Amino acid sequence: MEKWCRFQAADGPSYGLIEDGTVIRADGVPWEDHRLTDDRRPLAATKLLVPVIPGTFYCAGANYRDHIVKRAAMTGREPRIPPRADIGYRANNALVAHDEPIVKPADAGDEFEYEGELVAVFGRTVKNVSRHEALDCVFGWTIGNDVSERHWQAGDRTLWRAKNTDTFKPMGPWIVTDLDIDAARTIVRINGEVTDDFRTGDMIFDAAEFISELSRYATIHAGDVMWLGTDGLPRNMNPGDVVEVEIAGIGTLRNPVIAGS
Amino acid sequence: MEKWCRFQAADGPSYGLIEDGTVIRADGVPWEDHRLTDDRRPLAATKLLVPVIPGTFYCAGANYRDHIVKRAAMTGREPRIPPRADIGYRANNALVAHDEPIVKPADAGDEFEYEGELVAVFGRTVKNVSRHEALDCVFGWTIGNDVSERHWQAGDRTLWRAKNTDTFKPMGPWIVTDLDIDAARTIVRINGEVTDDFRTGDMIFDAAEFISELSRYATIHAGDVMWLGTDGLPRNMNPGDVVEVEIAGIGTLRNPVIAGS
Repeated sequence: MEKWCRFQAADGPSYGLIEDGTVIRADGVPWEDHRLTDDRRPLAATKLLVPVIPGTFYCAGANYRDHIVKRAAMTGREPRIPPRADIGYRANNALVAHDEPIVKPADAGDEFEYEGELVAVFGRTVKNVSRHEALDCVFGWTIGNDVSERHWQAGDRTLWRAKNTDTFKPMGPWIVTDLDIDAARTIVRINGEVTDDFRTGDMIFDAAEFISELSRYATIHAGDVMWLGTDGLPRNMNPGDVVEVEIAGIGTLRNPVIAGS
Repeated sequence: MEKWCRFQAADGPSYGLIEDGTVIRADGVPWEDHRLTDDRRPLAATKLLVPVIPGTFYCAGANYRDHIVKRAAMTGREPRIPPRADIGYRANNALVAHDEPIVKPADAGDEFEYEGELVAVFGRTVKNVSRHEALDCVFGWTIGNDVSERHWQAGDRTLWRAKNTDTFKPMGPWIVTDLDIDAARTIVRINGEVTDDFRTGDMIFDAAEFISELSRYATIHAGDVMWLGTDGLPRNMNPGDVVEVEIAGIGTLRNPVIAGS
């Protein structure tokens, strides 16, 4: 299992292989031809970047039963379990890296929530893959926080403000090339207190199903990402909070929340 | 007024300035530092590419009154005029260039329609721009065909298949750096017959309004694009057809329609 980060080197963004707390800089992209260099630095002193800027940023949306049922109960609506793996989109402007702040806009309401999500990072360009072959095009796995302003989510014709305002899509801290999804749990903490803890694999449609179904219509490109949804009933985040999403086997994505002007 | 294309050079994609039927190859991207080279070729013999692969692919969706009213009448629903300029998204996998085929999937229905649209290409990275300053961040204008499968559009939870299947987003043929939108008309032809002809500027929310509103929440990046919607009641396209979207002052985006396997 390899662990890859993207970081700010003196001459621009670069990929690095993480081994024993050291970042070994690579020339090239890890899922294409690349070469490790002699440039090494301690991980603890390295400014991490978003691990990939996707060509297309896919998002499963509602993909865990408990989340759908509890959110529906809270908003007084019938729960709608998706009948098919139909994919949505998020936007690159909203991406921020591990340790970078989530900025709560001045006009956002109280229901300003995290959503801890598993993220697939694609390493091959494919079309029409079967469920059986689907995971072969995944280079690795990282973590996303699908920050959501629920008042905007209820009112916008699209989810553009609710889900895609700047800083609403923390992703990182790095990519691992192997993960036992069935054994993994997703744990969310606010200021160190566990506020959600669910089986990462409890999805309505798993990664293989989404990838296979998507690839019937869309070519999936190396460097695209797919966020796979969240479970439970997320809590509000407030300026001053620190929110962490941990998936054992990957790591912990941590972001402070600050107030926007 | 400059006219810029992106084309396939021997060593990869490159930008070119079009002058008098000649493509003058540039080193660099036209909205950043760039330099014209001595490499010249006839436009007529040049394979054009999608003029920009956007970082974020914005789309206004419903943005002309007549289109909304006529589509609603056809589907037996009340017309819903958007109360605000809330933006949506399209996906890069679906992009194809001028003269490349639109592939109608084997399982698509009869209502397989074009939508001729004006496209803004951004050349500056901005946040919080006023309506007055909004067009300063537009590098230029091109043409899009927002191909739509209406049965999928009615049934999908998102528009992923309906709007973002591979080849459903022809864009081009090139970018012009100046356009009198108020004087422009968008004309669509199937096999040479005019099937739509509307004032390009008849939008519910104009480009300046969309850009200003979007930039309140999202940083717009150089290289992003925004498609600005269509008017009228588009017709079906069938394999064997050739569809053209012309906006005088820009040019004509032409694509053949073929049957998928």
